[in-house]
Amino acid sequence: MNLVSIINQIKLKKSFLCVGLDPDLDLLPKHLLKYNDPIFEFNKSIIDATADLCVAYKPNLAFYEKLGPNGLSSLKKTIEYIPSHHFVIADAKRSDILNTAKMYADTFYNYYNCDAVTLSAYMGKDSLVPFLSYNKWVILLIATSNPSAHDLQNLELNSGVPLYLELVKKAKLWSSYKNTMFVVGATRPNELRLIRKLAPDYFFLVPGVGFQGGDIDSVVDAGFNQNCGLIVNISRSILYADGGLKFDKYARKECLAIQSKMELILRTKSFI
Amino acid sequence: MNLVSIINQIKLKKSFLCVGLDPDLDLLPKHLLKYNDPIFEFNKSIIDATADLCVAYKPNLAFYEKLGPNGLSSLKKTIEYIPSHHFVIADAKRSDILNTAKMYADTFYNYYNCDAVTLSAYMGKDSLVPFLSYNKWVILLIATSNPSAHDLQNLELNSGVPLYLELVKKAKLWSSYKNTMFVVGATRPNELRLIRKLAPDYFFLVPGVGFQGGDIDSVVDAGFNQNCGLIVNISRSILYADGGLKFDKYARKECLAIQSKMELILRTKSFI
Repeated sequence: MNLVSIINQIKLKKSFLCVGLDPDLDLLPKHLLKYNDPIFEFNKSIIDATADLCVAYKPNLAFYEKLGPNGLSSLKKTIEYIPSHHFVIADAKRSDILNTAKMYADTFYNYYNCDAVTLSAYMGKDSLVPFLSYNKWVILLIATSNPSAHDLQNLELNSGVPLYLELVKKAKLWSSYKNTMFVVGATRPNELRLIRKLAPDYFFLVPGVGFQGGDIDSVVDAGFNQNCGLIVNISRSILYADGGLKFDKYARKECLAIQSKMELILRTKSFI
Repeated sequence: MNLVSIINQIKLKKSFLCVGLDPDLDLLPKHLLKYNDPIFEFNKSIIDATADLCVAYKPNLAFYEKLGPNGLSSLKKTIEYIPSHHFVIADAKRSDILNTAKMYADTFYNYYNCDAVTLSAYMGKDSLVPFLSYNKWVILLIATSNPSAHDLQNLELNSGVPLYLELVKKAKLWSSYKNTMFVVGATRPNELRLIRKLAPDYFFLVPGVGFQGGDIDSVVDAGFNQNCGLIVNISRSILYADGGLKFDKYARKECLAIQSKMELILRTKSFI
C-alpha cells in the first residue's frame, strides 16, 4: 500500500486509527477459549467489528510468539483475514546484520504479507537496507512511548542535538517519506513537535494513546501535516473494552467514539 | 546457567566457542531435504559433531521465523536437543515496552528454555526489566559487528563519551555482570578494548570472527579477563564448512581447529 492509498483510506474512512491486535489469552473473553484457535476467533471478531473505522491493523509479534508455533499460525490466519484495503504493520522491532535482516524482511513482507515492519536502528543503515529494497514500508523507532524511552533517546550529542533527532536526520538520508515512517509516542508531545519540524512530510505511527496516558488532541496539535501524517495506534482500550459475550460490540463502540473524534479533527483541519 | 558454571564449562571444554545455529534451507546439504524436518536434522548433526568443543549455542531467530510456524517447531526441538551443560542464547535482538517485554521474556526463558536473550536497549531500562527479573541472562547490543554499526553507536555525546560506552555505563547501573553480557563485534577491537576497560568483569558475546573479518587473537588481546570474559560466536564457517554428505565431519574439523587455538590461548593465559 503506497502513500497515496494510505491518504485515500484516511479520507474514505474519516479515520487515522490503527487497531493494535495484541491478543492476550489471559484477557480474552472466556467463551472464546472453547474454540480450536481462540486467538484467531478473537482477532476475527475484532476485525469484523472495526474494519470500517480504522485504516490499519498492527499485530505485535510478542503476543503471538509467546504461544509458540501455534501463535504464529494464528498470526498468519489473522493477517490473511484483514481486508486488503487496510495497512498491516508487523510490530516486530527487529534489527540485525545484513544477511539476517534479509531473512526478517522476507518473513514479514513475503511470508506474512505485511505492508510495514517496525525496526530498531541501533545497528545503523545496513540493518535497514534489505527492508528498504522492497516496495513496502519500514517504521523506525524514534521516540517511543515508554517511561524509560529518554534513557538513550534523549541523550544530547556533542552537536547539541538529541539522539532521537539525529536518527531522524540520518533516516532522511537513508530513505524517504514514501517508504519510511517514524514511531513517536503520544506520551512525548514535545519530541513529536520537534520531529515534525525536522520531517514535515513523514507519517508517524503514534502509540501510547489511552492506557499509556497520551491523548489524540495533543498528538494532532503537535504532528498533523497536510497529508494528516499520523496513524494513531490504540490496542488495549479497544480490545478489552469488555470481557463478555458482546466484547466485539463494546470494541466497536470504543472504536466509533475514537473515529468520531478523528472525523471531527479531519473536518476541522479541512482534510475532508 | 550461572556465571560460575559458564567459567567451569570453559575450563572443562578448554574452549570459549559459541556455535551459531543459523540453518539456511538454501545452504543445507541436499541429502537432508528428504527429511520431514531438515532444519532439525541439520542442527542435530551439528550439535552431535561439536558439543564437546563449544560452551554455547546461539540460534538466530530470523532463520527459524523465516519458515513460519514449522521453523519455530524446529527451533524448539533443537533447543531441547542441546545438552544441558551448554549455554543457550536466543539471538532475538528484541526490545519493547514493559508489558510486551514481559511476553518476550516468558517466551524465551520459559517456552524455549533459553539461558540468555540478545536485546536492543534503544527503548531504555524498562524494556529490559522484565528480562532481568528472571534468574537468567540478558545480552545487550553495544558495539555490533556490522559495517554500519558506527552510524549511531559511535556518535559522540556532549559529555565526550560515545553512545556505546554511555550505554555500558547505564547497563552497569541497571544490572550486574552476573546477569548481563554485552555484544561486542570482533570487527571492532578498539571499541572492545574501551568497553573492557569500563566493564572489567563482564562477559562479552563476540560475533564477527571468520566470515565478517574479525579474528580471535585481536579479540583476546583486547578483551580477555580473569574469567576469560569472552564467548566467541562462529556460525557460517562451521555450519557450511562443507555441503556434502559428511558436512558434520567438516564442521567438527573446523570446530576442532578453533577449539585448539582457544585451548592454546587459555593455556598461555594460565587460565587452565
